[in-house]
Amino acid sequence: MRIKKFRKLLREKGLFPCLVTDLNDIKYLTGYSGTNAALLIDAKKSFFISDSRYEEYICSILPPGFRFFLQKGGLADAVKDVFILTDNKALHVQAGLVTYVFFSELKKKLKGVKLIPLADDPVAELRLIKDDREIVIFRQAAGITDACFNHLLRFIKPGMTEWEVSIEIGLFYKKNGCRGCSFDSIVASGAGSSMPHYIPSMKKIIGKGDALLIDMGCVYEGYNSDLTRTVFVDKVDAELESVYNIVYRAQAKALAAVRPGIEARELDSVARSYIAEHGYGDNFGHGLGHGLGIEIHEAPAIKKNSSSSLKQNMVITVEPGIYIPGKGGVRIEDMVLVTADGPDVLTRCSKSLTVI
Amino acid sequence: MRIKKFRKLLREKGLFPCLVTDLNDIKYLTGYSGTNAALLIDAKKSFFISDSRYEEYICSILPPGFRFFLQKGGLADAVKDVFILTDNKALHVQAGLVTYVFFSELKKKLKGVKLIPLADDPVAELRLIKDDREIVIFRQAAGITDACFNHLLRFIKPGMTEWEVSIEIGLFYKKNGCRGCSFDSIVASGAGSSMPHYIPSMKKIIGKGDALLIDMGCVYEGYNSDLTRTVFVDKVDAELESVYNIVYRAQAKALAAVRPGIEARELDSVARSYIAEHGYGDNFGHGLGHGLGIEIHEAPAIKKNSSSSLKQNMVITVEPGIYIPGKGGVRIEDMVLVTADGPDVLTRCSKSLTVI
Repeated sequence: MRIKKFRKLLREKGLFPCLVTDLNDIKYLTGYSGTNAALLIDAKKSFFISDSRYEEYICSILPPGFRFFLQKGGLADAVKDVFILTDNKALHVQAGLVTYVFFSELKKKLKGVKLIPLADDPVAELRLIKDDREIVIFRQAAGITDACFNHLLRFIKPGMTEWEVSIEIGLFYKKNGCRGCSFDSIVASGAGSSMPHYIPSMKKIIGKGDALLIDMGCVYEGYNSDLTRTVFVDKVDAELESVYNIVYRAQAKALAAVRPGIEARELDSVARSYIAEHGYGDNFGHGLGHGLGIEIHEAPAIKKNSSSSLKQNMVITVEPGIYIPGKGGVRIEDMVLVTADGPDVLTRCSKSLTVI
Repeated sequence: MRIKKFRKLLREKGLFPCLVTDLNDIKYLTGYSGTNAALLIDAKKSFFISDSRYEEYICSILPPGFRFFLQKGGLADAVKDVFILTDNKALHVQAGLVTYVFFSELKKKLKGVKLIPLADDPVAELRLIKDDREIVIFRQAAGITDACFNHLLRFIKPGMTEWEVSIEIGLFYKKNGCRGCSFDSIVASGAGSSMPHYIPSMKKIIGKGDALLIDMGCVYEGYNSDLTRTVFVDKVDAELESVYNIVYRAQAKALAAVRPGIEARELDSVARSYIAEHGYGDNFGHGLGHGLGIEIHEAPAIKKNSSSSLKQNMVITVEPGIYIPGKGGVRIEDMVLVTADGPDVLTRCSKSLTVI
């Protein structure tokens, strides 16, 4: 049980009592899905704070050792009223996730109490390592994402707009058990594919000779998937074919290097140095990847100046790219589970150079 | 031009120099759409801060009097480097929109500079009142939303799942010029319609005798629409028919009361007291409405303890409801423009009691 693990972590780190206000963290710890809640977690008594809309629901999912506390006005007032019920002189706060105004308000209300700002979120530490249930969900989410890409290979025809393809992605996911897309799908054709954060156009027609970069993911059982494939329409430009092969090999090398203990920046460097050796160092401007979870971008960041290392049961993306302004770009991205034996690549749809 | 208006506001209120870090505010002021930027606005020199990914794009939309500043590390470092270029001893910060950690970091970097936390966002004050271009967009967004509802009346058949209807809403919007839904559509049938924040079920079949509550909106040209209608499937329960008429009249009374100068809580009370007089005071738990804009929920909040008043050219929702646990609920919601002459109701699809 996640709350039990979290209490253990707080005990080990001496972080009792701890106020958890981040809604994604609360969702992770308790399953709660709503727009207003906070947890005050102490060694003995703990409280689940929310307003009347969520009272019945929260009581039905209340973790052991928790009591529901009805918030009638602002959150800071509710925290004050609950804090009195515990026997404490200090409170740890998720300072990187609350606003300056909220922190100041809390400080004002809790006179004589020491507010201790936590720069690092202790829940994020748990969220880094996926449990068995999460890994099962990620496998399913990756499978649906593969199926969506295979569907697109049959669906896409030259003459369609980027937007039509983007619509089809959302539709496929929603018809196949997902709540929707994990982010606005990127469908970038021709020169647009050289922009890493392109927004699909309602007018741009996917034309013969275009590179077509598709970056997409689903939200399945509350978890986010992420996949990028680049295909070519009708024919392949010679330079882009060469670029494709470089990105493909850079990604394969990075995937093969995934193992517990490797530093995130070292992993980034595996792909980056290969791309640089082949003359495209300046055309790979973003990081190699990121962690996945309840949010689409989670720790660890896999990039140059990252201080993280990989650990068993992390789920990350590996997504090198080469972008040539005005011509096009290639990115190949998979979801990978870090296992004791090395990489377990969760997304499995074809990466062979494909002309549609 | 919005930046010009904003400079005028800052001058009047003595808020130079001001650091704007909220991405929605930056989008409102400059049109910028991306994931990393900040504005340092001073009486003379102003700076648009972002990283290399956005340099070319920002230079193409740079407002008059602004210079682009390339952020190489963290945002606080960039702000420090830019601040030196202005001749100031104090800096106003959007304290309700930045984290405690960011504020503290900035304080540490800007030694000898007085950081002044702004509890109220000065950009929000501008965003409250819609300009001509925004009003045109809202009219179009409301029209597409009406068209979607009329389409659903033909589309929905008993035996469909709530989820199938929800999918159709997103699809209709995306095929009609919108980027998507302004929030996860609520499609709640039968007893589910009594829960104001229901999530459509992939399994629940819309059955004969159900109340069917649909709350939905689109994102059109960056702006959010919002509409709720409640219809009945095959037949109407006698109590729900009576409830429908009470909500309908409560909403009509509140709509008629919309005018510049009326207090938000007074407007809320028009609908609330009518519903209470008819014996359902305890069954209307949420506020009457909210402002609309770049975000789906903006100021002013139209609710009991609100301290706002309506002003000309605000766009708000009016959405009373009555919810009977275990039986069903009725909510009717329209978008309204506040004009000098009173309400201009932007959403116009039928509110007559409808049996499908």
